[in-house]
Amino acid sequence: MQKPFLNVKAPQQARDLLRQFSALDTEEVSIDEAVFRVLAEPVKALEDVPGFDRSTMDGFAVRCPDTFGATESMPALLSLRGEVAMGRTSDISLKRGEAVRIWTGGALPANADAVVMVEYTEQLDQDTIEVLKAVAPFDNVVRKGEDFTRGEPLLRSGHRLRPQDLGILAAIGRETVRVYRRPSVGVISSGDEIVPIGIEPPPGCVRDVNRYTLTACLREALATPLWLGLAPDSLKELSILIQRGVESTDVVIISGGSSMGSRDLVIEAIRSQEDSVILLHGVSVSPGKPLIIARIGPKPVFGLPGHPVSAMVCFEQFVAPLIRRLEGEEALSPARRATLQALLSRNVPSKEGREDFVRVRVQKTADKITAVPVPGKSGMISAMVRADGYIRIGEDCEGLYRGDPVTVHLFSQWIEEDSEEEHLSGHEAAGGSSGDVFAVPQQEKLSRV
Amino acid sequence: MQKPFLNVKAPQQARDLLRQFSALDTEEVSIDEAVFRVLAEPVKALEDVPGFDRSTMDGFAVRCPDTFGATESMPALLSLRGEVAMGRTSDISLKRGEAVRIWTGGALPANADAVVMVEYTEQLDQDTIEVLKAVAPFDNVVRKGEDFTRGEPLLRSGHRLRPQDLGILAAIGRETVRVYRRPSVGVISSGDEIVPIGIEPPPGCVRDVNRYTLTACLREALATPLWLGLAPDSLKELSILIQRGVESTDVVIISGGSSMGSRDLVIEAIRSQEDSVILLHGVSVSPGKPLIIARIGPKPVFGLPGHPVSAMVCFEQFVAPLIRRLEGEEALSPARRATLQALLSRNVPSKEGREDFVRVRVQKTADKITAVPVPGKSGMISAMVRADGYIRIGEDCEGLYRGDPVTVHLFSQWIEEDSEEEHLSGHEAAGGSSGDVFAVPQQEKLSRV
Repeated sequence: MQKPFLNVKAPQQARDLLRQFSALDTEEVSIDEAVFRVLAEPVKALEDVPGFDRSTMDGFAVRCPDTFGATESMPALLSLRGEVAMGRTSDISLKRGEAVRIWTGGALPANADAVVMVEYTEQLDQDTIEVLKAVAPFDNVVRKGEDFTRGEPLLRSGHRLRPQDLGILAAIGRETVRVYRRPSVGVISSGDEIVPIGIEPPPGCVRDVNRYTLTACLREALATPLWLGLAPDSLKELSILIQRGVESTDVVIISGGSSMGSRDLVIEAIRSQEDSVILLHGVSVSPGKPLIIARIGPKPVFGLPGHPVSAMVCFEQFVAPLIRRLEGEEALSPARRATLQALLSRNVPSKEGREDFVRVRVQKTADKITAVPVPGKSGMISAMVRADGYIRIGEDCEGLYRGDPVTVHLFSQWIEEDSEEEHLSGHEAAGGSSGDVFAVPQQEKLSRV
Repeated sequence: MQKPFLNVKAPQQARDLLRQFSALDTEEVSIDEAVFRVLAEPVKALEDVPGFDRSTMDGFAVRCPDTFGATESMPALLSLRGEVAMGRTSDISLKRGEAVRIWTGGALPANADAVVMVEYTEQLDQDTIEVLKAVAPFDNVVRKGEDFTRGEPLLRSGHRLRPQDLGILAAIGRETVRVYRRPSVGVISSGDEIVPIGIEPPPGCVRDVNRYTLTACLREALATPLWLGLAPDSLKELSILIQRGVESTDVVIISGGSSMGSRDLVIEAIRSQEDSVILLHGVSVSPGKPLIIARIGPKPVFGLPGHPVSAMVCFEQFVAPLIRRLEGEEALSPARRATLQALLSRNVPSKEGREDFVRVRVQKTADKITAVPVPGKSGMISAMVRADGYIRIGEDCEGLYRGDPVTVHLFSQWIEEDSEEEHLSGHEAAGGSSGDVFAVPQQEKLSRV
């Protein structure tokens, strides 16, 4: 029995290894479907937007010198020359002392250089308005090309498209856009003791949890999961599934087996593939230490620990950043979760040189928010279910004290709050007001204790 | 021309109005597809998990009193009785002075009450091991039912399923789960000046931006968007589209028209529907004030401002919380975004009694993170594109000073960081290290200045 002393690397070193993998190929998609895809082309403005001076208010287009000095007690009188129809340009050309009715979004007529908001006017009769407040040039107007001008760079290649970015593509008339392909990821569970969930586990066996947590993590990371199968602790069967994965998907992740013996088996099964190399075996994170990162041909392959909590930590810290990279992003850091500032409920020891991810529940009382570490070993899925998020204890930290301010990385942006319903165990709602949480000054203590 | 003095309500009052809408019907889905769906049933454990005392380490199952006093210099000698095969129970029953080889996840044999990690053992020969460290009862063991026990409540109805929650459903053998249906949301753009994006806008016209930003916002909110069409400023055509929306979707959102006249038209078109009521017209947020919330039969209908930025603010503050409620959640607060602490680059005036959402770009220098307000009116989509997020200025605040600490709510959790690539205007990458950002003590100043 070989001793499991791994040659562990620091998390950042592990992520740096992933730099050797680069973005997948690209495809053209409708902007209707492109949200959160990563741009594979730079986008420039093809025209000035707006294409004309445009009112931002309902009111009256004027020549602003005509309003100078106007007040409520001394209004300026202007002759009303008609109205600008929406979606049209007017053939009116304003003369001194004239105004034209205009709506939000309407095109300013010739010689008008500002809009007086309707709130600051009184209509005296069919042909006359009073202006109660002076306007300066281009008040309440978006000028031609003020949003952006022809030739201006708008979005860079490698940028992940947010809703507003699709808006700007729409504004310049782009119906489709070139983006990187989303990675497909093959998922393998392994271990003689793992059974499909539809089966009553025989004595000594447990149901396959990782298949479902990892598939869901992949969906959260916007990758396309492909279930490859459950392998027993057999070099041959594991090798066949890995080979099938490498042939049909962009990334392969294997969870378990839960024994050192079968982790060796995963290593061996990877080594048995043509053009394969083990890049890493062991990383200084807890839970998650026995991570494997390998490469078969051009494809990345991960051996994740069998413990469900460990597998999820490794996914977030290493697999998800790689997925983003294959999708065209430069960075290799974990995605930024919503956070809460809280005070730690008890001492949490750690180990220098190791990054710890401690699952916590968030409790809110009238005067403070507390992060309560959730007891439970990394093999227990309930420890993740009871938790609202995790705190990270850095590599250069030996632990945190009760009362220390901590940043809780929340598992869900849809964290339930202020619910009147009673909470069952296994799901305690997190605290936090609906606004910002300012209660706890956050210090640099976390990484220094 | 009616004056646009709206009877504005506070944002929280507006959200409270949404409490009259309740969750949609439910459906049974595969747990493979259920991530981020909202549970429509409470889930209890159907059995003890694990179903047996289970090793969490590779090593040797022992009777712990046999190890008491063992040290590296004075090891305990134990007779090796064989091995527990993975996925099986052993018929070995441990006697005093005996050990059995076991792997992570293996079932403890009878009479064993702890596992010694392989690191703390030496194998002397085929039949003998040395134990170098004592273990206490149930060290390195997850006991039967320790993850959870039969009958224990695991997840409550109304809980949004995270990856780990699917893991616990898998662990108890649930292949499907009852969840609330996801709302379908009909999208209408309106305004005589709006043209489909495939068309070169005639003078006085602009392309339809809101259709695409709102569709993308709906996808981000996990609702199903349905495009209903672009209505000119015609009561008849607008009414037909609204009616079609109410008949075929769960929620209808109409953006624009951009004029007060056509906002009256939206109100009028809603009022023309059978069993309709205007719940709100005007909310004290900026941008976003001319929001309309209505109800047609049992269905919620939103009239969003035509300005793209205003429409997005109203979406995040009011439409998205309603979508979550229809999907079975209790709370009506906006989703929690990832945040960054930063220092404001310049004074930002606000108005008491109004909630302001100020778009900012995040700039990182060696010693600080700065939030730089992005200039640009609410009709300019580029102001949203240039921004990395927004800061919120509360109703009871008259403004913020340069240097004030602020919380930036980030538009994307996939914020680009530390990229070496040069950034084009229109997309400045945000600062922030890959770890936590502790630099700025956050105070309660924001809501008090």
